[in-house]
Amino acid sequence: MHVAENSFDPSRVVAELRALDARTGGPDGSRRLCWTPEWLEARTLLRESLATLPVEVDEDEAGNLWAVLRGTSIDTLVVGSHLDSVPKGGWLDGALGVMAGLELLRSLADEGTPPVTVALVDWADEEGARFGRSLFGSAATVGTLDLEVLRELSDKEGNKLVDVVGEHGITLENLDAARTRLADVKAYVEVHIEQGPILESIGKGICTVTGTKGIERERLIFRGQAAHAGTMPMPMRRDSFRAASRFALEIAEIARRHDGVTTVGYAQCWPGVVTAVPGETRITMDMRHIEAEALAAMFADAHDAAEAAAAAEGCTIEWEHIFRIPPMPFHPALLDAARESVAEVEGHDIELPSGALHDASEMARAVPTVMIFSSSIDGLSHTKEENTPDEHLEMAADAFNRTSRRTIGLIAAGSL
Amino acid sequence: MHVAENSFDPSRVVAELRALDARTGGPDGSRRLCWTPEWLEARTLLRESLATLPVEVDEDEAGNLWAVLRGTSIDTLVVGSHLDSVPKGGWLDGALGVMAGLELLRSLADEGTPPVTVALVDWADEEGARFGRSLFGSAATVGTLDLEVLRELSDKEGNKLVDVVGEHGITLENLDAARTRLADVKAYVEVHIEQGPILESIGKGICTVTGTKGIERERLIFRGQAAHAGTMPMPMRRDSFRAASRFALEIAEIARRHDGVTTVGYAQCWPGVVTAVPGETRITMDMRHIEAEALAAMFADAHDAAEAAAAAEGCTIEWEHIFRIPPMPFHPALLDAARESVAEVEGHDIELPSGALHDASEMARAVPTVMIFSSSIDGLSHTKEENTPDEHLEMAADAFNRTSRRTIGLIAAGSL
Repeated sequence: MHVAENSFDPSRVVAELRALDARTGGPDGSRRLCWTPEWLEARTLLRESLATLPVEVDEDEAGNLWAVLRGTSIDTLVVGSHLDSVPKGGWLDGALGVMAGLELLRSLADEGTPPVTVALVDWADEEGARFGRSLFGSAATVGTLDLEVLRELSDKEGNKLVDVVGEHGITLENLDAARTRLADVKAYVEVHIEQGPILESIGKGICTVTGTKGIERERLIFRGQAAHAGTMPMPMRRDSFRAASRFALEIAEIARRHDGVTTVGYAQCWPGVVTAVPGETRITMDMRHIEAEALAAMFADAHDAAEAAAAAEGCTIEWEHIFRIPPMPFHPALLDAARESVAEVEGHDIELPSGALHDASEMARAVPTVMIFSSSIDGLSHTKEENTPDEHLEMAADAFNRTSRRTIGLIAAGSL
Repeated sequence: MHVAENSFDPSRVVAELRALDARTGGPDGSRRLCWTPEWLEARTLLRESLATLPVEVDEDEAGNLWAVLRGTSIDTLVVGSHLDSVPKGGWLDGALGVMAGLELLRSLADEGTPPVTVALVDWADEEGARFGRSLFGSAATVGTLDLEVLRELSDKEGNKLVDVVGEHGITLENLDAARTRLADVKAYVEVHIEQGPILESIGKGICTVTGTKGIERERLIFRGQAAHAGTMPMPMRRDSFRAASRFALEIAEIARRHDGVTTVGYAQCWPGVVTAVPGETRITMDMRHIEAEALAAMFADAHDAAEAAAAAEGCTIEWEHIFRIPPMPFHPALLDAARESVAEVEGHDIELPSGALHDASEMARAVPTVMIFSSSIDGLSHTKEENTPDEHLEMAADAFNRTSRRTIGLIAAGSL
């Protein structure tokens, strides 16, 4: 398939993104939290655009939306990303990949029947912002969800995941049926914003992504003894928030020691009033590294740090597993396709591992996968300030298109 | 007035407490949250007992219930505490002082007309558990309530304090009229459980209370920059939770340095998800000391600590004032009366400052005041597990009676 000349228009991708933002954004940022009316509104906009194309649109058993452009061969390239956002999120996170995929379908359809089938997917609940389980839809499709864990998940208001997805016609028992979607899939390509400051700091707009970092995500429950803030002498306290604070500082040192990243993003005290020593404090921990051995070492250090923090304050520590994914290196042939495309578009060979998790992390378990990054202004994401220069968005869409067409060529040649 | 021989029966105080618990307690603890039917039920029980005595019973403009036993002189000793409890609270917190005061009135009335007038008061909303403003009734009577602040207060369900107290016939504009109750008051005596572990830890049942500790209560808002937990390199982060953690550990050191107590009882991160560096973290700080200079030094140190914690993580810090009360040392002559009484009852000279706030803290602003403590099992309070050995309750009631009668003698002699 010829890469250089086609009807793919990067500026249309940016226009679609702005149209989406106009309908589902606002002064506080994007409101596309999965399983909410605003998320459904985003999908309505996508369906309106898809309705103008010769594609088959439906949703699978995990709530993923598929738009399939039939090709000469049943062998399939999947492209996509996710329309859902965190609360008060950014306008580009996920949406860039969906809108670039939409433009790919539009351009391919313009050009006649493609040699292989191309499917755009809008993955459900990539963010996991409500129930703490990200990559819901892509993991279901790859078959890596743990139903026992899902059954126990609740949001802050106590709503159970099983009930909320049930309102969208999804039952946990049927999730596995989404795996049939991968029967003829030969490759997966995704374009996404970096969501970090590295490309900007080196003055580049796009790059090849070599893989996604492995993640360990846990909930830690420090338990001491609730007591009156005025009457319990300091030496007799068993203060769970002090234990959690010790851990939060030490876990940052662990990240620096191993050249990874660690985050405590959530904390809640019980009873949680100004006049009481917290008897229980729950925090979350997220740690990431591109090398499996280093990630394992960080995880072991974190356990030691939690034990030490709890012991220092007379508390106990309990761990609740939330999520784990190993480092996911991308496919060598697709990495070459991406490198050639980035070189054509911006004239360099920059490549980075992704610190963020993406649906590509799940897809890489099952099929040859690669990603393209655009830069992010100030490295910000998951916030209303998230932004990228239009020029970089268009370069990323361009490189994504070139990589996708190179991948179509590889599939058609039987090389994947 | 002769202290040693009178009809005051400490065992009746314990019996009245058990009767109150039978009517307003339960498997989850006491249900006497102020401005609720259960609180009114507790007052009904108190009124039933008062109806058998030659006292005048009415409520003032702040919802405090008064029972006045007229004496030869209009000069007045006030005794009392509060029947209201926190949700799922203990059976003794506040109730001990009210029932001991009831027994004092009963015994004095048995003995004829006392030389001075003695009034029992059941203060309204000591706990402030619903609207966050403790000492409502006593502060109104002393004249230290801030009406502008009260007008803004709401409970968790959004009910405004002004509406809820309005249902009990209380208007903010009339609160000040409660101050007339103090016109002839010469002294205030209160008995309360310690709500801490110190007496138990030294094997004692009761002690003299030297005063109540001053309190500084603030909300601290650390602001950094929300960012993706996977993509923002550690050195570029501005993590508000790490700043709050530094502060929480340092504030404990400040308490130890100054021999006070400090507590971070509440923490909330924004956006508060496992996958985001917290851009904003709110915590509360409560600090207490019996000496004003030491409290001021702790408060200054806390400001330095917050600035340093914020600066170390590239964050800013904002303070929101919640509540402040200076240390309230009790009256020298009444402290002597309490010391003599404690020595008679348990044979020692133990005295402690109160780490908890009491209605006595407000009354001490206006009139000579003193308190007696009983021990608390395991130091627990504000929970259904709150308890005290019967023997210690009876000793505390006994010492309260002796202190009150000594105070009556001081008032009658014109010494106060």
